[in-house]
Amino acid sequence: LKPLLCANRQVLLRSRPTGIAQAENFELVSGLIPELQDGQILVRNHYLSVEPAMRGWIADIGNYLAPVAIGEVMRSIAAGLVVESKDAHYAVGDAVTGWFGWQEFAVVTADRIIRKVTDNDLPLSLSLGILGINGLTAHLALTKIGLPMPNETVVVTTAAGAVGSAAGQIAKLMGCRTIGITRGAQKVDLCRDLFGFDVALDYTAPDWREKLLLACPDGIDIYFDNVAGPISDAVHGHLAQNSRVIICGTASIEDWSHWPQGPRIERHLLVKRARMQGFVIFDHQDDYPASITQLATWVRTGALRYQEDILMGMECCPDAIAGLYRGENFGKRVIRLV
Amino acid sequence: LKPLLCANRQVLLRSRPTGIAQAENFELVSGLIPELQDGQILVRNHYLSVEPAMRGWIADIGNYLAPVAIGEVMRSIAAGLVVESKDAHYAVGDAVTGWFGWQEFAVVTADRIIRKVTDNDLPLSLSLGILGINGLTAHLALTKIGLPMPNETVVVTTAAGAVGSAAGQIAKLMGCRTIGITRGAQKVDLCRDLFGFDVALDYTAPDWREKLLLACPDGIDIYFDNVAGPISDAVHGHLAQNSRVIICGTASIEDWSHWPQGPRIERHLLVKRARMQGFVIFDHQDDYPASITQLATWVRTGALRYQEDILMGMECCPDAIAGLYRGENFGKRVIRLV
Repeated sequence: LKPLLCANRQVLLRSRPTGIAQAENFELVSGLIPELQDGQILVRNHYLSVEPAMRGWIADIGNYLAPVAIGEVMRSIAAGLVVESKDAHYAVGDAVTGWFGWQEFAVVTADRIIRKVTDNDLPLSLSLGILGINGLTAHLALTKIGLPMPNETVVVTTAAGAVGSAAGQIAKLMGCRTIGITRGAQKVDLCRDLFGFDVALDYTAPDWREKLLLACPDGIDIYFDNVAGPISDAVHGHLAQNSRVIICGTASIEDWSHWPQGPRIERHLLVKRARMQGFVIFDHQDDYPASITQLATWVRTGALRYQEDILMGMECCPDAIAGLYRGENFGKRVIRLV
Repeated sequence: LKPLLCANRQVLLRSRPTGIAQAENFELVSGLIPELQDGQILVRNHYLSVEPAMRGWIADIGNYLAPVAIGEVMRSIAAGLVVESKDAHYAVGDAVTGWFGWQEFAVVTADRIIRKVTDNDLPLSLSLGILGINGLTAHLALTKIGLPMPNETVVVTTAAGAVGSAAGQIAKLMGCRTIGITRGAQKVDLCRDLFGFDVALDYTAPDWREKLLLACPDGIDIYFDNVAGPISDAVHGHLAQNSRVIICGTASIEDWSHWPQGPRIERHLLVKRARMQGFVIFDHQDDYPASITQLATWVRTGALRYQEDILMGMECCPDAIAGLYRGENFGKRVIRLV
């Protein structure tokens, strides 16, 4: 392995996009791997994660994390194996997932590691998706904000996506009726056939709003919102009394630097005594272990299904975020390096 | 009293306003009082309440209560004395507050009574305001949704009004810093001098947004919102992490039949993990007794101050709601009949 260590391909942020990050905002370079200091760990990345949220991590206007600086390695979660360690808690060969960035090798301290991956009967890539922040987000946002009760009606946007598909299935496991909103006939089929949504709607169909109304005659108890924008506007009009709206993402808004306008929400919230609440998974790290245990159990029994969209090689990184927003992926997008 | 009983002046809803109810939407008529049936109670109203929420009770487009029908006595809470009773739980002379309508006499069953008023050392009119739904709304919305903690920053709109002034004082009693937003210099003085807001802002001043920013350097932890609209837009930009927004009223929106547009809220809620929730006091009747006890204690000790705007006579009813929206009242508006 040692000869390899002098070359570490990395993807740097080269310029800051105003809207969605495009390939030209990134650059693939060859870096070096420094000697390990005491307390450091060298991880070889096997899989890099690609998230819709990455757009926010590089935006200039502030977010729940400080923006990635120009010239820095692109921030990402990754999964790999420890290949050298000067931290007694980590041994060569340990599988880990953490904040390792879009690069082949990462020199990190333990605080950058999210967890050791010990469920080794399952593919390592799952630690970035259904057993990573996507599954955790779906599970913890539902159980902490959504509070699903049997027979409630749950609407999920980006329903074929990594978070949405998990949210729909977990709501169903908790006894809810689920309505998935997605784009295109192929994803509608995926929502219904693989992810078990009771109803799947294509928001590009001209009559999807009428179909939504027909699908929720008693109103919507939980809206798991990953998009904001006009799709949400249609959902808000059907909220049931005491409903809960999880604000988990705003994928439909291309650019917050020209703040978008929409129908004011206050009257819906007041008349329906509804609750709308933002959710950021990184606030809930104490709940990861129990949630991962639950998610892994469901995955093993087949109760919780997932789909992966695996790109091969570092060269795929620069365009990978833009591709997500073009909607080209079916399932959790990861980049395989090894 | 008996000779009086054949004449009962009443205010009927004559036509449905599109925006705010005006005098011409009502008519003052003379009705009759029917003979009491078993289980009925005859109440002579001493005070009629006037609420901003009445606009919603007569709107056509649905609300948390069915709209008042054309030709019906205008729905209102009132306070008065029992003058005849065929219900063993109520005796002649009992002071009561309840859904008695804009009329001199009301024949009601017990389910229309909100409570017997037993704190008789305090003015009966207070049972419509600081010891009625206004005080209850301020107290219960704050404690159930706002969850104030010492040293948090609380912003209140319609801060000189019946709900807002109570909300600001109760937040202060719970150890918070309070910022009141109101209209005009006179109400700014009232907010600061009578209701003890740490900062009082006049939203008609061109620099009020800059002053708001200066007043909350660490962000806003609780926003007690009675207005929606552009004032709220300015507040939302300063929400602190894990903040709570109580949607208690939408006074600044004249007309929801042409749904108003505004900046989309989702990004604020997501980035700040904020919670926004509608509050309707009538959901919380089980909590009234304990809350009234607390509020009356604060009123007696002078810790909780109030202002009343008392109009004299039934003739004041038709224009009374429009007057509230013109902002002409200082304090809780009631109409005194006796």
